[in-house]
Amino acid sequence: MRDLKKKDKLVEAAGDAYGQTLTLQPLDVCSDESVKQCVNSVKDRHIDILINNAGIGLLGPIESISMEEMKKVFETNFFGMVRMIKEVIPDMKKRRSGHIVVMSSVMGLQGVVFNDVYTASKFAVEGFCESLAVQLLKFNVNMSLIEPGPVHTEFEMKMMEDVAKMEFPGADTDTIRYFKDVYIPSSMDIFEAMGQTPEDIAKCTKKVIESSRPRFRNLTNSLYTPIVAMKYADETGGLSVHTFYNLLFNFGPLMHFSMTILKCLTCSCLRRRTISPN
Amino acid sequence: MRDLKKKDKLVEAAGDAYGQTLTLQPLDVCSDESVKQCVNSVKDRHIDILINNAGIGLLGPIESISMEEMKKVFETNFFGMVRMIKEVIPDMKKRRSGHIVVMSSVMGLQGVVFNDVYTASKFAVEGFCESLAVQLLKFNVNMSLIEPGPVHTEFEMKMMEDVAKMEFPGADTDTIRYFKDVYIPSSMDIFEAMGQTPEDIAKCTKKVIESSRPRFRNLTNSLYTPIVAMKYADETGGLSVHTFYNLLFNFGPLMHFSMTILKCLTCSCLRRRTISPN
Repeated sequence: MRDLKKKDKLVEAAGDAYGQTLTLQPLDVCSDESVKQCVNSVKDRHIDILINNAGIGLLGPIESISMEEMKKVFETNFFGMVRMIKEVIPDMKKRRSGHIVVMSSVMGLQGVVFNDVYTASKFAVEGFCESLAVQLLKFNVNMSLIEPGPVHTEFEMKMMEDVAKMEFPGADTDTIRYFKDVYIPSSMDIFEAMGQTPEDIAKCTKKVIESSRPRFRNLTNSLYTPIVAMKYADETGGLSVHTFYNLLFNFGPLMHFSMTILKCLTCSCLRRRTISPN
Repeated sequence: MRDLKKKDKLVEAAGDAYGQTLTLQPLDVCSDESVKQCVNSVKDRHIDILINNAGIGLLGPIESISMEEMKKVFETNFFGMVRMIKEVIPDMKKRRSGHIVVMSSVMGLQGVVFNDVYTASKFAVEGFCESLAVQLLKFNVNMSLIEPGPVHTEFEMKMMEDVAKMEFPGADTDTIRYFKDVYIPSSMDIFEAMGQTPEDIAKCTKKVIESSRPRFRNLTNSLYTPIVAMKYADETGGLSVHTFYNLLFNFGPLMHFSMTILKCLTCSCLRRRTISPN
């Protein structure tokens, strides 16, 4: 954890495991020093499975986001992951065993309007891992990406509500209007309809690490499969760009309706997942 | 240009156009200040078409690449593009017209072993542009990505030769051997067989900016289409990872042979391109 003072909820959830099979170490993935210390604190530096989960969000019109804010997202989401992987692969390669799991996102596969920088950071994660996976396979080290869609956390909903109140200096009034009056409501709908719980994602992750032949890509939410397929069906990218454009700007009410339908299906067995958490 | 002292070759190639329809301005895409000054130097800041071409390469085992070197690649390839786009879109949006062209790469669509960081930077470019394109369409501003494969430049071949002589401290001997004895020769083969000239890419770019309905994605080299299709055919990513693994580590001689065949086809009309430069 970055801040061990925040460990109480985790310790409570861990129950008897805490101190037995679970220990906590301070770790700031943005610091070379902290990453080295954390890995050194593990007995013989022997790490079988590394799960990269640290990540931060960023939302809004790019005109009102400073370069510094953008770099902070990359520092955690991308370079934080690279630091961890760089630190553990020499040992994994030497041992000819290991598994690196990276929490990516469906936004690592498909861009989403007003999520330009977050999307870019998750695309970077995907590209890096896709390149490295081929080399690591030669050393019998597996690499897996987990690609959740929206996840219901207090943090997510609060971020969305906070953002809806912000001013966005530098952005024109039309852009702010599209963001606040079109994107935010659609996004809330999608969250309600498609959102999974953090427990769902944890269960999917457990399946991935327990698999004898772990997959490289793991979408946790099958409702996103058609969205990704659309991108792949048209190499010019026109199909995706125009579909998202129409969904957002022309068929707002239709989208709201579709999401309501999806929300009903959520409760039923019609909702199968690429990796089911159950 | 970053360094106007290097303008001679360009000025010579431009002939009479120089000083008439072509002017040069100093520009360092890594500097907020320089980007602002460059755009301010244009009459009324009126830019119809922005072509983001600045980019640098990085090759080798990540164990021997410092975080600083990695960040330099992102600073130019990703944040340089973001700075330029942030600077021009307020005016383009206001005018409800404009075209942003970004030089991406096939490595923005498919990871390539030992190109982990360069690939990540180009994936980031793709994700950012994919997200922004939907919003910009609402303002009648077009976004196009150009995705070349290998391009024959003195710079590229020299980089590959230099890299083959380097030491790579931090990387184990097996990794260095795979890099120098397996990857570099394959990569040279691919360059020879599939490489386009800078003029080819310039002609493709001209087609994209002259199009009345410019495409979002533009692969310049149709030989890469099957590689991208393979990724899209299997959402678990296993097909791509294992195919590249086998091509590189198990079927080296077969790959050399295939590339030799491709090289012969290069001269013939069998080689059609997604956007032909001709």
